[in-house]
Amino acid sequence: MAGKMKEMVESWSFLDTAESNFRPLVVIELAKGTKEETIEWFTKRIVDKKANGGAQLLIKPLVTENGVENIYLVGASHLRLLLGAEAVGLVKECSDNSMRTFTYSSRKTFKHFADDNHNFLTMAECQYIIKHELENLRAKDEKMIPGYPQAKLYPGKSIVRRLLTSGVLVQIFPLHDREELKKLSHSWYGRVKIGYQPLDDIRCYFGETIALYFGFLEYFTFALIPMAVIGIPYYMFAWEDYDKYVMFATFNLLWSTVILEVWKRMCAILTYRWGTLLMKRQFEEPRPGFHGVLGINPVTGREEPMYSSIKRQLRIYLVSLPFVCLCLYFSLYVMMIYFDLEQWALDYHKENESNFSSLMLYVPSIIYAVVIEIMNLIYRYAAEFLTSWENHRLESSYQNHLILKVLVFNFLNCFASLFYIAFVMFDMKLLRQSLATLLITSQILNQFAESLLPYWLQKRYNRRMKKRMCSKKTDMDLSLADQVNMEKEMGTYLGTFDDYLELFLQFGYVSLFSCVYPLAAVFAVLNNITEIYSDALKMCRVYKRPFAEPTANIGVWQLAFETMSVISVVTNCILIGMSPEVDALFPDSKMDLVLTVALVEHLLLAVKFIMAFVIPDKPRDIQMKLAKLEFESLEALKQQQMKLAAESLQE
Amino acid sequence: MAGKMKEMVESWSFLDTAESNFRPLVVIELAKGTKEETIEWFTKRIVDKKANGGAQLLIKPLVTENGVENIYLVGASHLRLLLGAEAVGLVKECSDNSMRTFTYSSRKTFKHFADDNHNFLTMAECQYIIKHELENLRAKDEKMIPGYPQAKLYPGKSIVRRLLTSGVLVQIFPLHDREELKKLSHSWYGRVKIGYQPLDDIRCYFGETIALYFGFLEYFTFALIPMAVIGIPYYMFAWEDYDKYVMFATFNLLWSTVILEVWKRMCAILTYRWGTLLMKRQFEEPRPGFHGVLGINPVTGREEPMYSSIKRQLRIYLVSLPFVCLCLYFSLYVMMIYFDLEQWALDYHKENESNFSSLMLYVPSIIYAVVIEIMNLIYRYAAEFLTSWENHRLESSYQNHLILKVLVFNFLNCFASLFYIAFVMFDMKLLRQSLATLLITSQILNQFAESLLPYWLQKRYNRRMKKRMCSKKTDMDLSLADQVNMEKEMGTYLGTFDDYLELFLQFGYVSLFSCVYPLAAVFAVLNNITEIYSDALKMCRVYKRPFAEPTANIGVWQLAFETMSVISVVTNCILIGMSPEVDALFPDSKMDLVLTVALVEHLLLAVKFIMAFVIPDKPRDIQMKLAKLEFESLEALKQQQMKLAAESLQE
Repeated sequence: MAGKMKEMVESWSFLDTAESNFRPLVVIELAKGTKEETIEWFTKRIVDKKANGGAQLLIKPLVTENGVENIYLVGASHLRLLLGAEAVGLVKECSDNSMRTFTYSSRKTFKHFADDNHNFLTMAECQYIIKHELENLRAKDEKMIPGYPQAKLYPGKSIVRRLLTSGVLVQIFPLHDREELKKLSHSWYGRVKIGYQPLDDIRCYFGETIALYFGFLEYFTFALIPMAVIGIPYYMFAWEDYDKYVMFATFNLLWSTVILEVWKRMCAILTYRWGTLLMKRQFEEPRPGFHGVLGINPVTGREEPMYSSIKRQLRIYLVSLPFVCLCLYFSLYVMMIYFDLEQWALDYHKENESNFSSLMLYVPSIIYAVVIEIMNLIYRYAAEFLTSWENHRLESSYQNHLILKVLVFNFLNCFASLFYIAFVMFDMKLLRQSLATLLITSQILNQFAESLLPYWLQKRYNRRMKKRMCSKKTDMDLSLADQVNMEKEMGTYLGTFDDYLELFLQFGYVSLFSCVYPLAAVFAVLNNITEIYSDALKMCRVYKRPFAEPTANIGVWQLAFETMSVISVVTNCILIGMSPEVDALFPDSKMDLVLTVALVEHLLLAVKFIMAFVIPDKPRDIQMKLAKLEFESLEALKQQQMKLAAESLQE
Repeated sequence: MAGKMKEMVESWSFLDTAESNFRPLVVIELAKGTKEETIEWFTKRIVDKKANGGAQLLIKPLVTENGVENIYLVGASHLRLLLGAEAVGLVKECSDNSMRTFTYSSRKTFKHFADDNHNFLTMAECQYIIKHELENLRAKDEKMIPGYPQAKLYPGKSIVRRLLTSGVLVQIFPLHDREELKKLSHSWYGRVKIGYQPLDDIRCYFGETIALYFGFLEYFTFALIPMAVIGIPYYMFAWEDYDKYVMFATFNLLWSTVILEVWKRMCAILTYRWGTLLMKRQFEEPRPGFHGVLGINPVTGREEPMYSSIKRQLRIYLVSLPFVCLCLYFSLYVMMIYFDLEQWALDYHKENESNFSSLMLYVPSIIYAVVIEIMNLIYRYAAEFLTSWENHRLESSYQNHLILKVLVFNFLNCFASLFYIAFVMFDMKLLRQSLATLLITSQILNQFAESLLPYWLQKRYNRRMKKRMCSKKTDMDLSLADQVNMEKEMGTYLGTFDDYLELFLQFGYVSLFSCVYPLAAVFAVLNNITEIYSDALKMCRVYKRPFAEPTANIGVWQLAFETMSVISVVTNCILIGMSPEVDALFPDSKMDLVLTVALVEHLLLAVKFIMAFVIPDKPRDIQMKLAKLEFESLEALKQQQMKLAAESLQE
């Protein structure tokens, strides 16, 4: 088999006319024992000419000491990548510093472009282009995958997606660039320094989605510093006056609105520089898991699985919604059991005061913490199953429904006990204590579970691997094989969801009860500084390199954070209204107190909405640049029409 | 002078090669005594070839028995209009029932298109095209208007706008089509019938902005019917139970959210059918009144007046905002004086009960009503002056600032006394009475002042005109001159602002205090039915025909109505909370009452926002059609790139 492969590789190389050096960019791992006719058909389709429906890429089997192992390296000629950049609608900087959609015919006008400069496209961009081309490799007249009659195909179905769902294709992942990674990790977290992250380098290496997460994390940390600074004296001097708390809470509420609005502007600046703000939305293909009866899509006119939207709505409103409500109810029920247990432990401790009984005091908290984690885990699986069962056609719609489900449950699970303590038990001391415990322990646990543990495991594994490999050869080519073998065993980064969720819950701890515990912002800042380092470590050392994913904003998370800041206006107003100091201001009538609090709350909400409305989402210079581009395209259209009109009227 | 004109007309006619019949579409009235060189230059520019920077339209002086009167009729050849339709980006229906942007080269694919069918474009569309072409007639190397050295020009300045601001051009207006108008008015308001308005015909005759207003008026009237039907038994059986009021208010609040969301969908259906939903936004030129130092616009690279955005912000926040606040304060002050007067009149009546004293009881109300109207009027002028002084570059930005200013003041002026009665005086009986009086009298006054009075004046004038004319000749050509002379004296329709404002205030009366006066919806429905007729009459008989204005939605009014419906949640919750029946439910603790009301209010607001989020803004089939168009354009782009790529790779 290896012999035949070698021969094929040689015969393919004639396609690589533009350049002689093959640069491996993406790794394809096929299942062990994949039938040869399948491999032949698949590789043929990858290298085949565009005109014949191929991807016109380059492919080479990875040769290790064990022979060919069904692992393939994919690359592409420079010309092919440039044409691919045009196909995905990449936006690059022109010589006149404006950002424009790249086209092959206008390539000379772009900054740093030269026909022999192969660094015009970053490696992450090349890998994104190859991924796009592979995913757009579509079945022509094949009725099934050759060798796998059960894996049906129909015209237009993405071959890679069918191979993945049928298990023939194990994974596709982009290769790390060892040298670049070293440079990046050095400037990112290699030295202890005070300063910004190298966001542009992160974006070049990992793509916009991940760079934007780190940008948001950094921005959010800086934005929390004023709150933290104001919060410190409250702890140091044990300020408990009413007016100081009111001042802190008011500042906090307005500040949180401002930072969320300003983030939109920051985000526009970043994504304009990265070109994704201008990138046109591509037409979304159905997600891999989408299934249904084959039919003609009325939009595209193509044959593809169809699924009734009414059925989906029924599944959402009659199954998913009741299930989520049930889970929320169950979560509240568990919380009530926890408070009962707590009470029981307290009573027990009072009755028989002993070492054992004082230990028993901690048992309910520990049990509750463990149960919460288990519930979050089980619910997450259930939510994924349900959302997948709802059979959304588009990945974006699937993601939105999943995020909504998980967000609501996590919000309740994390904050329900705090709400109960605050608004049912009215115990501010216990609230402060619980808040501190929850915030700090969750931060420590998260940091440990998220980065340090996988890092340690990965390191141990790498050391063993290296030892085994290095004892044999130090060949350059084998080093690539080593790298591929090592990287293919690394964990897969599942996206920024969990990272954003963590920040979202942290924002909740900081803002929901800010007037009770001003120190929360301090802990959040400290956590986020280490979080930047541990997340960076995670990205560079623990996980496979993820494919770059262009994005223009943080999507549904902006809405989630804004909703949280609205809820926090309500909770803070109630908390302040309940404080004994405020109570004392209205000795005659509780009515007046409540009415005043309600009035203040409504005013604050109104101010928030007006502020959100008045602050423009994009800075003026970005607006101008966008207007200029729009004007140019309109002008070009007009010129074209004028020419046509003049010609028609001359006739 | 007339002789020379006649000669010119003959020499121009050679340009009209495509057809021999000249159809007058738009009337241009120049000031009496305009210099001949100016007229010659202006008409030359209008008929000049596109390639020479002209508009390539047809123009004829209107010849009446008094000779040439500086009134000109503008028309265009069929071909010219088709090319103009492409330039303004008109969207028309294709033979396959899809809506597409019209281009001259693809003209054969459009429904009802034939080279000899001159009804492919409606008269309103032709007039809109001519207006667009006239406004886009720009100065080349002229430094001033010939004959008027003080009327400066610079390259790119719209000639028509400069002529208007310098007073040489009195007005430009489109001609009515007597026959069409007769048909339209017959089907619109000519016969008493139950049914929908002929919205498509209205749109064909008056354009989308006006048709959309009538569409909204009709929709809003139908939407109010359920509220009116539910409101009637409250009046008939004098229901005053707590639970019935709560039910009515809750229904009202949720219903108002639903109708505003559903309107967006209705609006999308209408504007898709009319093509404006798909129409691309044109690049906005500076508004006529905009002034500043000549500079280079960084967006367009053209020479135009520039005005610092910071200066404008300073004017808005340091002058306009304080002025508006002062006016609001003054309005409240006047209201307080009114209540003092009212009290004084009551006291006077009690002391010396006589016929005179009981008459005196009405005096404060009458004075207040008159003062409110005067204040509204003065404020309107002040707001227009201030907004114009703020020197907004774009007409849309000017309109938004003006609408905001007027809305806030009108809201306070109309509702402040009701708020005072409800939440300071706690007098529900007086509230109901004031509400009824205000609603009904404002409706009657509006209907009278808005349509019947101008209609009557116009009719009298027309009769006199006709008598004078008909006594002389009944020539066909003179009939056109008569028509022009009659129409040019008619009032100018100033846009839909006042009509929407009236509906907005009506919506306030209906929803803000709905639980106190369920009958308000009944009056609103009755008013709106007659409003449709009187507005239709006004459009068809009282005013000059307005230029059609394409629009895809009702713009800032959607936001205004939504804001009103949020405010009405708050007011209704407070009103219900204050009612003695609800009070009696919480005999022990007023606290519990207020807390319950606050909780319900927050829940209602949350439900409102969730509903607004869940109900899609466009119906599914419109979404599909839009997606199809987007897919097609992306596909076309891809095909083009693929072809290019294949060619490049073959080389």
